[in-house]
Amino acid sequence: MSQLSYAVVGTGAIGGYYGAKMARLGREVHFLLHSDYEYVREHGLCVCSCDGDFALPQVNAYGDASAMPKVDVVLVGLKSTNQHLLRTLLPPLLHENTLVVLIQNGIGLEADVQEWFPGQPLAAGLAFICSSKTESGIINHQCYGSINLGNYSCRSASLFEAVLNDFIEAGIDAHEVNYAEARWKKAVWNMPFNGMTVALDTMTNKLLENPATEQLIRDQMMEVVAASRALGVEHVDEPFVEKMIAMTKAMTPYKPSMKLDADFHRPMEIDYLYTRPIEEAKKAGCPMPKLEMLEQELRFIQSKYL
Amino acid sequence: MSQLSYAVVGTGAIGGYYGAKMARLGREVHFLLHSDYEYVREHGLCVCSCDGDFALPQVNAYGDASAMPKVDVVLVGLKSTNQHLLRTLLPPLLHENTLVVLIQNGIGLEADVQEWFPGQPLAAGLAFICSSKTESGIINHQCYGSINLGNYSCRSASLFEAVLNDFIEAGIDAHEVNYAEARWKKAVWNMPFNGMTVALDTMTNKLLENPATEQLIRDQMMEVVAASRALGVEHVDEPFVEKMIAMTKAMTPYKPSMKLDADFHRPMEIDYLYTRPIEEAKKAGCPMPKLEMLEQELRFIQSKYL
Repeated sequence: MSQLSYAVVGTGAIGGYYGAKMARLGREVHFLLHSDYEYVREHGLCVCSCDGDFALPQVNAYGDASAMPKVDVVLVGLKSTNQHLLRTLLPPLLHENTLVVLIQNGIGLEADVQEWFPGQPLAAGLAFICSSKTESGIINHQCYGSINLGNYSCRSASLFEAVLNDFIEAGIDAHEVNYAEARWKKAVWNMPFNGMTVALDTMTNKLLENPATEQLIRDQMMEVVAASRALGVEHVDEPFVEKMIAMTKAMTPYKPSMKLDADFHRPMEIDYLYTRPIEEAKKAGCPMPKLEMLEQELRFIQSKYL
Repeated sequence: MSQLSYAVVGTGAIGGYYGAKMARLGREVHFLLHSDYEYVREHGLCVCSCDGDFALPQVNAYGDASAMPKVDVVLVGLKSTNQHLLRTLLPPLLHENTLVVLIQNGIGLEADVQEWFPGQPLAAGLAFICSSKTESGIINHQCYGSINLGNYSCRSASLFEAVLNDFIEAGIDAHEVNYAEARWKKAVWNMPFNGMTVALDTMTNKLLENPATEQLIRDQMMEVVAASRALGVEHVDEPFVEKMIAMTKAMTPYKPSMKLDADFHRPMEIDYLYTRPIEEAKKAGCPMPKLEMLEQELRFIQSKYL
């Protein structure tokens, strides 16, 4: 197989980081930008990274997806509140075998994109990374950076493997994982901590220092475990919950992305982080009452500022 | 039966109001006071009421329960966060047949007092009143004022009836109600609205204007309905829930007492308003997950200021 070509849709803290690593590796990468388009077209991208800074003074920058070429792989780093935009942004980039990798948080993302693009090969990208986009064209990569790839509907094992190898060659700690297990394991952490830091206007450490909220976080994690079991997803269990709690206690105090969204009065990713998994669990006969209450509180909180 | 004598333990917005009405009627009333003792001993009590102001320039005021006489009826208006104080405050006031009326909110209040004072006749007083104590010795009675009395363990029908008649003679809209039904019906409103106005820093009307939180309030009310059913308490049902929601929509925007407590950084009545009913429901095989989550959130919020 000749070298894969890439497009990045949503060139922010996540999409921008992985796309820049691919470009530095020498892959052909086409970046779709929105507010940063003019700046990046002129100055390129800069990654300030804990692993060493690097600059890409010239990148293929686009302000309009319809001007972009078809590619072998699309890396989607869009915030899921804008997921509907993919219906118009993706078509110019896709040939029949283009693999679309959704590097996003939540449940139901692949199912929706698959419905909009039947037969298109899809994969989930689960990023474990602290990075932010502080200014136009500047990506701040503070720590971590690994990515797990879960195959959702890519029937070409060689294509999937080639993408995985590109990540590894680009210097990224990348692994193949079971799709459903990986998505639901991430939900175990994401669902309690993203919303609860917003609902109680706090950070991860404070929630675990108070016995009542430590128990609440555990209760909510166990709701994800029960839902996973009802949905036939394996290895999402109580020991994993305890591992997540212990890991979070050992972490420096942290504001999850949803807390940052709330602080800056941006839309929160409620649909894919809460509504969809709660719906899927309910369909499988497993309600998640405490996470549903959290969703209801988040909708109220968002309505105060949006 | 000769005229009943009364003591008021907790001469605040509620105990002070009903006690003052009894004193105005001409009953012998002994008021236990804490911070207001000096003032009330000198100036008496004043009720600024929507039904007409009245003053009691001289009242039997005490700063210490051990100086008080035994009485026929004790009206308890204490905040339930101080419930444990009753173990030492009540004994000087009680003869074998003294009826103790707990004019307080929550579930499990009578059970605890009964455990501390086995055999003592107890009743619940469910007040529907807007009043507040704004300054020493001044009770502001804004509106409503009715009281429902539920017999918990008073075997003397004539005593219970005499107390009810005193309330009525004092000009208060008073009725006998079924104890358990009345306590749990009050919980239908109290449990969702007291805590949710704190958790989301808002007022009753805003919670019902947002579809997500209107549903959450309804979900929580239905948890109380299910718990009541599991505990064999009758007439706490879905039509009652809809009636409470419609009534609250028609009310002027309201801050429940727990919201005022949180705003003024006072302890919240979490134990009797949440922990106890949740425990009782759980014992009856009926968990209340959304109200339990609310309890967990309230414990976190209180720990931020207390």
